[in-house]
Amino acid sequence: MTGIPPVRKLVLIGTGLIGGSFALDLKRLGLAEHIAGIDTDGGNLERALAGGIIDSAHAEICARSVSGADFVLIATPVSALPAVCRALAPHLAAGAVVCDTGSTKQSSLAAFAACLPQHLPDCVAAHPAAGSERHGASAARHGLFAGNRLVICPHPAQNPQAEIRAAALWQAVGAQVCRMDAAVHDTVFAAVSHLPHLLAFSYVAQILARPDAEACFANAASGFRDFTRLASSSPALWRDICLDNRAALAGLVRGQIEQLEHIEALLHNNDGEGLYRCFEQAKRARDQWLEGREKAV
Amino acid sequence: MTGIPPVRKLVLIGTGLIGGSFALDLKRLGLAEHIAGIDTDGGNLERALAGGIIDSAHAEICARSVSGADFVLIATPVSALPAVCRALAPHLAAGAVVCDTGSTKQSSLAAFAACLPQHLPDCVAAHPAAGSERHGASAARHGLFAGNRLVICPHPAQNPQAEIRAAALWQAVGAQVCRMDAAVHDTVFAAVSHLPHLLAFSYVAQILARPDAEACFANAASGFRDFTRLASSSPALWRDICLDNRAALAGLVRGQIEQLEHIEALLHNNDGEGLYRCFEQAKRARDQWLEGREKAV
Repeated sequence: MTGIPPVRKLVLIGTGLIGGSFALDLKRLGLAEHIAGIDTDGGNLERALAGGIIDSAHAEICARSVSGADFVLIATPVSALPAVCRALAPHLAAGAVVCDTGSTKQSSLAAFAACLPQHLPDCVAAHPAAGSERHGASAARHGLFAGNRLVICPHPAQNPQAEIRAAALWQAVGAQVCRMDAAVHDTVFAAVSHLPHLLAFSYVAQILARPDAEACFANAASGFRDFTRLASSSPALWRDICLDNRAALAGLVRGQIEQLEHIEALLHNNDGEGLYRCFEQAKRARDQWLEGREKAV
Repeated sequence: MTGIPPVRKLVLIGTGLIGGSFALDLKRLGLAEHIAGIDTDGGNLERALAGGIIDSAHAEICARSVSGADFVLIATPVSALPAVCRALAPHLAAGAVVCDTGSTKQSSLAAFAACLPQHLPDCVAAHPAAGSERHGASAARHGLFAGNRLVICPHPAQNPQAEIRAAALWQAVGAQVCRMDAAVHDTVFAAVSHLPHLLAFSYVAQILARPDAEACFANAASGFRDFTRLASSSPALWRDICLDNRAALAGLVRGQIEQLEHIEALLHNNDGEGLYRCFEQAKRARDQWLEGREKAV
């Protein structure tokens, strides 16, 4: 028992990993009476319906699929948000909460303001810091958000009741809800999420371009496996995120180039002390982070 | 039953993750009648003895610890190999096989040739492509090598019987033994193992140097965890490997800088198609690699 009233009609736009996992948890908790799934990918929609993630399946955002909704979760790639908002506008009932899940939050707020201006107070910009390199309805699972952060980026027009409602549902599925300024969010997540994805893609691209790529892959082991896991993520999804957050990300790529130039110089100078210092500080920081994380869970 | 004769006296120089795991597996298979452990770290040596990894503990390489050995496994950091070989030289019985486990093989062959010239035919340069960010006797475990490659880099003076003996023992503990030229080995492992370690250290160092490092760590999730696992590796061990293999590694660092400059330009040009192509090729290659690996195991 969570003590919060269930959603009468949840409209889930994008029935993939994030949306599907949210729906599965709400259902199990008895917190969603009806879930209407909307997806432009018919196969994915069908899998969501067959997998019991949604109760009704819809190919488009229209009066029939949206009317009566008291909560709308938008879990599409970030680039789709403006069009989704425009399509939703004519069909939203007053007071229906609209919550997105995009990895970049300044652009979410901009899309809400530009494409859902009448409904802006009830729009909540949220980002669940959870995921997987897998995607689609078949990757959805119970407990995806448990113990992970859910960042809400409030805006001046925000209706506090809408934020409280969204926060309560995310808390119910196990997320640790926190608030953050959207610009700060985008910088921090560029550093700890978008950059690692980009570096993993970049590293695999480098290996792939080598004349001895085949021998490299044949000798790759568990270190390679973990370091490159993020490179198995959806290319379209990450192209969108990278472009959306490209100002912050380009600065970070520049920073990593400079860091690597420093290390290149250490190698050329055979500077064991310098390498040790760099490695040791990184190890200490990473070990401390992991220890804190394991204590928290 | 493995059908191969057991080692009468195994001398294990370096009772850490690699050496300890090899010893544990040989013992369980009944393939080592006595294991003499040698380690300059008294605490580690004690843990190896207490953990049943070794049967006798020795602080130094001397007549008492080495005499009677028919197999010597050197599992120290790569920088220690020349000194270990020089210390071994006066105490080795004719025909005793000496096998190292270092991550760089040209320097192993050079150390064997320079510091154990009389014994060179029975020296085997080997590299188990298995490991963990953890180290020391307490990290040793059964099955560490199972399903992973063990690369032997043969040399012109090699006694085939010594190579066969070493290969048989590594096969017994589950490794997939293969042969590779030492220069090819060092280039390939620079690409698939040494570079990812260096990039993981470099990435964490970059985040750590940011004024908002604390906020970054507080918002880091599972993607960050896996991408940075290698940065929890031993700084001293990896300083040695990086310096040892610095010619190959410096070229790869330069290659990664150029790859990142390409991506930086794509971001500045808002080139979604270029980013997609890069990400998509990397994802496809990584997925194919993983599929092949999962089939093989």
